[in-house]
Amino acid sequence: MADQSVTPTASDPPPPPTGPRPKSTNRGRTSDPISSSNSDSTDIPEFEPFGLPGPRGFPPLTDYLDIWDVDMMRRPDQPNKQEHHTNLFNSDYLIVRRGQEFQVKITFNRPYKPATDKFALEFVIGSSPHYSKGTYIPVFTTKERQSSWEGRITNTADNSVTMAVTPAANCIVGKYHMYVAVVTPFGVRRTRKDDRRNLYILFNPWASADAVFLDDEKERQECVMNEVGIIYHGAYDDVSERDWNYGQFNYGVLDACLYIMDRAEMPITNRGDAVRVARKASAMLNSRDDEGVLVGNWSGEYTYGVAPTSWTGSTDILLGYASSKMPVCYAQCWVYAAVFNTFLRCLGIPSRVVTNFYSAHDNDGNLKTDIILDENGRIDRNRTRDSIWNYHCWNECYMSRPDLPAGFGGWQAVDATPQETSDGLYRCGPASVQAIKHGQICFPFDAAFVFAEVNSDVVFYSRNKDGTMEPVKVNRTHVGRMILTKNPGDMSRREITDQYKFPEGSAEERTVLEKADEFGCKREKSDPPVADVDLVLPTLEVTVGDDFVLSLEFTNRSDQKRTVDAYISGNIVFYTGVTSSEFLFNDPTVTMSPNKSVKESVVIESRQYMKDLVEQANLHFIVTGKVKETGQIVSAMKVVTLHNPKLTVTVPVGGKVNEEMTATVEFTNPFAFNLEEVYMRMEGPGLMLPKSKYFSLIPAGSSLIWAEIFIPQRAGTSRVIVSLDCPALRQVAGQATVTIAP
Amino acid sequence: MADQSVTPTASDPPPPPTGPRPKSTNRGRTSDPISSSNSDSTDIPEFEPFGLPGPRGFPPLTDYLDIWDVDMMRRPDQPNKQEHHTNLFNSDYLIVRRGQEFQVKITFNRPYKPATDKFALEFVIGSSPHYSKGTYIPVFTTKERQSSWEGRITNTADNSVTMAVTPAANCIVGKYHMYVAVVTPFGVRRTRKDDRRNLYILFNPWASADAVFLDDEKERQECVMNEVGIIYHGAYDDVSERDWNYGQFNYGVLDACLYIMDRAEMPITNRGDAVRVARKASAMLNSRDDEGVLVGNWSGEYTYGVAPTSWTGSTDILLGYASSKMPVCYAQCWVYAAVFNTFLRCLGIPSRVVTNFYSAHDNDGNLKTDIILDENGRIDRNRTRDSIWNYHCWNECYMSRPDLPAGFGGWQAVDATPQETSDGLYRCGPASVQAIKHGQICFPFDAAFVFAEVNSDVVFYSRNKDGTMEPVKVNRTHVGRMILTKNPGDMSRREITDQYKFPEGSAEERTVLEKADEFGCKREKSDPPVADVDLVLPTLEVTVGDDFVLSLEFTNRSDQKRTVDAYISGNIVFYTGVTSSEFLFNDPTVTMSPNKSVKESVVIESRQYMKDLVEQANLHFIVTGKVKETGQIVSAMKVVTLHNPKLTVTVPVGGKVNEEMTATVEFTNPFAFNLEEVYMRMEGPGLMLPKSKYFSLIPAGSSLIWAEIFIPQRAGTSRVIVSLDCPALRQVAGQATVTIAP
Repeated sequence: MADQSVTPTASDPPPPPTGPRPKSTNRGRTSDPISSSNSDSTDIPEFEPFGLPGPRGFPPLTDYLDIWDVDMMRRPDQPNKQEHHTNLFNSDYLIVRRGQEFQVKITFNRPYKPATDKFALEFVIGSSPHYSKGTYIPVFTTKERQSSWEGRITNTADNSVTMAVTPAANCIVGKYHMYVAVVTPFGVRRTRKDDRRNLYILFNPWASADAVFLDDEKERQECVMNEVGIIYHGAYDDVSERDWNYGQFNYGVLDACLYIMDRAEMPITNRGDAVRVARKASAMLNSRDDEGVLVGNWSGEYTYGVAPTSWTGSTDILLGYASSKMPVCYAQCWVYAAVFNTFLRCLGIPSRVVTNFYSAHDNDGNLKTDIILDENGRIDRNRTRDSIWNYHCWNECYMSRPDLPAGFGGWQAVDATPQETSDGLYRCGPASVQAIKHGQICFPFDAAFVFAEVNSDVVFYSRNKDGTMEPVKVNRTHVGRMILTKNPGDMSRREITDQYKFPEGSAEERTVLEKADEFGCKREKSDPPVADVDLVLPTLEVTVGDDFVLSLEFTNRSDQKRTVDAYISGNIVFYTGVTSSEFLFNDPTVTMSPNKSVKESVVIESRQYMKDLVEQANLHFIVTGKVKETGQIVSAMKVVTLHNPKLTVTVPVGGKVNEEMTATVEFTNPFAFNLEEVYMRMEGPGLMLPKSKYFSLIPAGSSLIWAEIFIPQRAGTSRVIVSLDCPALRQVAGQATVTIAP
Repeated sequence: MADQSVTPTASDPPPPPTGPRPKSTNRGRTSDPISSSNSDSTDIPEFEPFGLPGPRGFPPLTDYLDIWDVDMMRRPDQPNKQEHHTNLFNSDYLIVRRGQEFQVKITFNRPYKPATDKFALEFVIGSSPHYSKGTYIPVFTTKERQSSWEGRITNTADNSVTMAVTPAANCIVGKYHMYVAVVTPFGVRRTRKDDRRNLYILFNPWASADAVFLDDEKERQECVMNEVGIIYHGAYDDVSERDWNYGQFNYGVLDACLYIMDRAEMPITNRGDAVRVARKASAMLNSRDDEGVLVGNWSGEYTYGVAPTSWTGSTDILLGYASSKMPVCYAQCWVYAAVFNTFLRCLGIPSRVVTNFYSAHDNDGNLKTDIILDENGRIDRNRTRDSIWNYHCWNECYMSRPDLPAGFGGWQAVDATPQETSDGLYRCGPASVQAIKHGQICFPFDAAFVFAEVNSDVVFYSRNKDGTMEPVKVNRTHVGRMILTKNPGDMSRREITDQYKFPEGSAEERTVLEKADEFGCKREKSDPPVADVDLVLPTLEVTVGDDFVLSLEFTNRSDQKRTVDAYISGNIVFYTGVTSSEFLFNDPTVTMSPNKSVKESVVIESRQYMKDLVEQANLHFIVTGKVKETGQIVSAMKVVTLHNPKLTVTVPVGGKVNEEMTATVEFTNPFAFNLEEVYMRMEGPGLMLPKSKYFSLIPAGSSLIWAEIFIPQRAGTSRVIVSLDCPALRQVAGQATVTIAP
């Protein structure tokens, strides 16, 4: 063949074209762009001819219905918003919930004649609306022609028709536009696009057919409607509280929540699925991977943003993200959980913030947390990787789990705090709490990770000279000590540990741990002998700046003398359990007679810890030691959360809607040093939007008063929430309960 | 209070500091960086004193063992690489598999005295090695002191000791460094770091304790050791093949695979888990989200990179990614699958490429693919979103699934092709094939998605004037028509459809679909009446440039006359099923007597389709129509893959290792037009690394010869694989089988 023609010769390939490299298109991949923005939309033509034979051009209209006016009935005092529990939203648009009827009123040029006139309401969401994708939904007046959304005429009067529409209980959640379309013999005529006919459709915990149905009015009022939250922190035996203004009904917050899904390019068609919405949001609430809402920062250095401890609510964060389109600085776990809670409640998914005390972390489903001791029983800081947080906050959201076998619906754990070691897992959940309790951690999503957070063992290893280690003590009760959430309907605490775990030591607990073991959650198998010397550290409530006494109680349970070489280490720690510095070290030798207790007291003066305090002022005491006679290890750990001074917040009684009132905040610097660069924040749901103040200096011992005038927007009981935050003193808070008369 | 002291006054907050915004640190979050790079490492000190009382400074060494030489026994002909099936790797380093013994030889300054001398081998991976994390593993000579890796002395001779080490069968996979440490009374002395003591530890399908154990030598030889692959494409009734050089043993490929995990910042501690490694790689093989290996491009415009159809193997792609540290342009599904296959085989995870013919796609677990017809039964292109690919390639990898209940180990589907609508799902799997077959799609990862790819229904809707649609025909057998992979041990096909699905129409199939339905995979419930007119399109084998006849057979199964208004649409499509252009439209009316068949023939001339051909030269015929008498819908679809001209590849017989030979490629442009910008590629495992040639022009009718000299590197049977690719003609290939004598 080759000799029959000229042989082409190889040459150098041409240089690649210069200029900007074009973005690869999807021509050849998809014929239709996938709608993933709720702010994009396509106009539907005002006239759509049928293409039948007939007169060309705009048809004569005299005989046919003409639309004069459409009333969305969107005022807060009209039935739509009242019945749909959306009247608290500060929004100009109609907001309703799916699976429940709402009404709109259409006025025509003449009375509607049911026998001959044909019209439909058309609901459209996103660009490229499609009937089969659920993004274009026509709703008809007659039973015979029904789409997935039901329609019926409830009233006709003069030229007006009131039409009731029931969106499908699984429809897409977001911002729709409504058209009114009249069918004429020549084609369909419809209203021109007009923002006033926008409407939002939300999840509906009141509708039994909705996946987020929650059959308890008290829970719904708390987990969807309540704006004032309490987030628990501190230590399990000395719980602290901080108030939070979720602000889910504030102006612009709903749009910000939809923007978050747009920013994530979440396909519109997936936005009716509560499981996917919650999972997507767990990824998008943190800025990792996806330029999401909040930048995590645990460094203590917050000059370039707002300190995590300074926020009093979610509104500033969400509005800031939506307007700047940039991640907001800074968050730690409770900020992630609080803003996530706003997102979920705003969209209508029941949710709550939970706090797990002693939360194993960053260990990727491994059920062991290692503490390494040297040969003398002293903790080896270089080899111990701290991964138990004093507390950790996440969210629970309530929904059915159609993707799982029966029995795993209900509360689902979701977590927006970016996890460090979990294989790129900067999202977490929803994980069925019921599945976690029963060790059924093979089901999506991330159940094994949450299981580890509440079930890990703390294993003390002794490290030998040659580098090997052997377990010398296993503490199976430290992690997941207590899980708290706010009680529905009041400001008290509710312990929900039993929803995550069977009672310590029960047969069920053993079964669950074996089950989890089957699915690769390996716990420590060894069972080193328990020492016959007990060591107990006291529960302490200490205020920042106080001197105090730490009293260790050693108890010899044997019939022989026991001597312990003990190491008492007092550390300043972040709430993540990470040690900042050691401020105290003692190594007493404690001798106990048979069956006797001995107390060893250590006096701690404030000057020892004050200068190095970080963040939330946690002191962590860890005492380890070796029993001389037996070589056994004794250990005890205790977190002491130093109590901060409080803000005094005063609001006079007798407030009324739309009448000016004043909130007064007082604070005295109780320390012998000046406080510098002090930020204060104040807000209150239905009372005032977030306000802030900056004080460059609060001299030692001096006091300040901040009086803020505000005009309550609605009646009922609410709270003014105030924070004070500066590098030397974080997380000072105060609040006042306010009842506003109509 | 306030009146007792000076009240501080609020002021404007200071402007934020200027200069670059510092990266948030994790101080306060983790006390120890998480090692996520296999190229980082920490030096362990050469001398680690015990800190006991004794002479200061460097201790006297005369009495103690001194290490003179360490032999890793890493030559391909030494037992280590032979026994570990790693002798094909082109690498200077020792490469072994976990859970299996290998040997190293240490030469001391004097004979080793077992009674008094103490030494250990220390294996270290990544930075911040920790015993408890499995990143620092000391291995001892005696049974009494064993870590998770076993050690034993197998030989002593003169001053040398041969030590055998068995890495744990679940140890981290990657590049380690080995130290030899001698214990002296004063401390530990160890070898200085030296690259020659690096070693790689891989997954081990030969070890029964390894999660990737595959108890079939023929399968192991194919799915781990074989470098020459066949990837199936085309149409289920006219399957085409393309050869691929996986090249997993080529120089640099193993390092490139480890770099992929480093680039993904995958924690070192997770790299022993085959499930996680496969999942992470499915994300990293595509460039979406994470700057991974391959940029997808389905646009037909590949000027800025290599056309997906042009690649002949994985080596260029992986080495290019590792050296440029930039995603490589361009890939479509078989390129993703082929490179993923290289990654898995290289690391020792058994894997194969599978092809699913008529693969539902981009529909996110929805079991319906919609085709919209207008009221006359003609396809409505604007409203039909193509989401059935003519074929789609993914991978299967073989492993146990400790994270799932028993019974779901074995082959797992993984897919690196980025999916468009699946909720940000730019990773897919591993999904248990067994779970997919049984509809147990509630288990991770992404089983519902793969289930939909092989089980979706094609639903034809008729669209009414008012925008509503009703299903008029459901085709439940079109999607997932056939699944193929290469047969182990030879070059034949193996159909594995039965591993994904029970037989069509069986009771098991019904049960499975009901099960999937429970987990939210909704299929079309309606069952429109089946038309009594059948329509069959023939299977055609056509070569590019040929005229041919499409013969439609209409069969009337009723006892009455039937008339069909048919629409015959011939389209040029991408392999993704996306239509590029319509080149043929006919609308015959076909009349059939009772119980009779009628043939309708359409002549297709090459000029109709040649000028618009795209990519892989697929023609898609879709015929729809309405039976006048009954209003029922008839439809049929057929993909015709035009056969390309072939390359003739010739290699003389009698080749020997290290002796020069020549491969000759011949190609004649059979068309009446010139081919421009032609790239040719050639490679062959063990024969030659990838070569390429560029021809700016191959005139119409002219021929070329490319003779390439090469030196075979090893004995055995292999293939020379050649491709030719240019914008006007894609995916021309040829190959020659070559047997090399030692």
